[in-house]
Amino acid sequence: MFEHPTIHDIRDAQERLKPYIRHTPLLRAEKIEADFGCQIYLKPEMLQITGAFKIRGALNKSLSLTKDEIANGIIATSSGNHAQGLAYAAKMLGVKSILVLPVTTPKIKIANTKALGAEVILFDGDTAARWKRVYEIAEECNYAIVHAFEDPLVMAGQGTIGCEILEDLEEVDTVIVPMGGGGLISGIATAIKETAPSVRVIGAEPALTPKYFYSRKNKERTSLPLKNTIADGLRISVPGQNPYPIIEKYVDEIVLVEDEHIVAGMRMLAKDAKLIAEPAASIGIGALLAGNIKLNRMRKFA
Amino acid sequence: MFEHPTIHDIRDAQERLKPYIRHTPLLRAEKIEADFGCQIYLKPEMLQITGAFKIRGALNKSLSLTKDEIANGIIATSSGNHAQGLAYAAKMLGVKSILVLPVTTPKIKIANTKALGAEVILFDGDTAARWKRVYEIAEECNYAIVHAFEDPLVMAGQGTIGCEILEDLEEVDTVIVPMGGGGLISGIATAIKETAPSVRVIGAEPALTPKYFYSRKNKERTSLPLKNTIADGLRISVPGQNPYPIIEKYVDEIVLVEDEHIVAGMRMLAKDAKLIAEPAASIGIGALLAGNIKLNRMRKFA
Repeated sequence: MFEHPTIHDIRDAQERLKPYIRHTPLLRAEKIEADFGCQIYLKPEMLQITGAFKIRGALNKSLSLTKDEIANGIIATSSGNHAQGLAYAAKMLGVKSILVLPVTTPKIKIANTKALGAEVILFDGDTAARWKRVYEIAEECNYAIVHAFEDPLVMAGQGTIGCEILEDLEEVDTVIVPMGGGGLISGIATAIKETAPSVRVIGAEPALTPKYFYSRKNKERTSLPLKNTIADGLRISVPGQNPYPIIEKYVDEIVLVEDEHIVAGMRMLAKDAKLIAEPAASIGIGALLAGNIKLNRMRKFA
Repeated sequence: MFEHPTIHDIRDAQERLKPYIRHTPLLRAEKIEADFGCQIYLKPEMLQITGAFKIRGALNKSLSLTKDEIANGIIATSSGNHAQGLAYAAKMLGVKSILVLPVTTPKIKIANTKALGAEVILFDGDTAARWKRVYEIAEECNYAIVHAFEDPLVMAGQGTIGCEILEDLEEVDTVIVPMGGGGLISGIATAIKETAPSVRVIGAEPALTPKYFYSRKNKERTSLPLKNTIADGLRISVPGQNPYPIIEKYVDEIVLVEDEHIVAGMRMLAKDAKLIAEPAASIGIGALLAGNIKLNRMRKFA
């Protein structure tokens, strides 16, 4: 396995993760779909262990490390959800974890990460400086680094969501996936396109940081100034290096969603689906509300 | 089948309902259980079709009526969730429905009931007067009445939740169930005690209207003045007539929960389980927070 995972890696991940994670239900959203005239399903990963999909990738990677590699501990940087996933994985495996989080990380994500037994370092500085700090600590303490989206085993872990969707809804037409670093969408798109290539995969990213949109337009990975979208989980200035070519290969369309539509999506998920979704997870419904996705028979990833 | 359902009626209901309703997942609540030192599972019926368990009973009854009985339409009175369940059932079966709701019914429940195509009549008066109105309309229009909790087929429908819990968590120790009219708990308690009698069934009711608590103490069905608990779904002055003997037979313990603990339960479900639960559905966690349930290995019904 090189820099991109294949469907085989994703199926391996599925077997590896089976005893530990939830196969979340695919919920038909009757009240929401009434507004759109097509079938809409939600993949409610907020009901996943640790409250987000990130546990899938973090655990798949951690379980694949050798005893020696993981002996001292694992380290990562994250906007919060990967941190919780990794802290959970470390706790499960009985090893230490250090998470370097931006000072802007929502308090509840910091508290949850600490509650899982991780050491949290709040870092005030840009992404490059934060990574420098991670490498320093990793070397100093001999900790294994688990990257939130560049690692093919992490992408494969997130991709198990794609397999679950296809298992639960064979006749799915379109899958909408939030785009941050790109680990989630590269994994899901691989799972879907290497199993059922006719299923449409749409990526949704905040209009305030349209990095994938402009990268596709410019035909190269493009870095943009970081703006403060409400979707903190998707706040990143450049597409992930390893996910990027997978996204270019497999993602059919990229749509931009304004913050106001992301918030409207959150509200709709709370009111009509009784689910508390963070902004990053509401961008799919936000994209539908913004009216920038052509609808046939639709399925949405939340 | 007389006034109380048996496990066979509940299994029949399960078969009858299977194509139409959701077998909701039983979610382990890792974050919540950390505060209690035992395993806690949630049965998130807010993710059920129509957003509440009531569809189970309403649909089981409606599907059991003959074509002649149901031809003109169905009618009921409800604090809101049974109304939505019945409106959904009527729509599914292609017949009309009239729902007589107290003027105090939350607006969202009124709107949802109307959105399902039902005729809604807002009634300002006590329960007896409201029922009088229901009987008048039912006779006038030749509508079939579907009682929210007195009907054994409705209880059997709600009881399918008990079967699902036992299927998904064989080794469950205790099941906590909210008590309103008594349709839910009589159904679940029957399912559980007639399958696995050693599982403890605990009923939770608002401390502001401790009708079951005092009925048990007085050894007879006792009516109490109606007080304004925040749990609108459990606001009723007297135990249901048909559920009452089932509850006395099968429910091991009745606990009272103050409104402040119900609200704390709602908050905890939102924060730690990402679920939006109405007050009535939060009373189980509220009971745990109040500390009035002795814990072994615990499972909670939300």
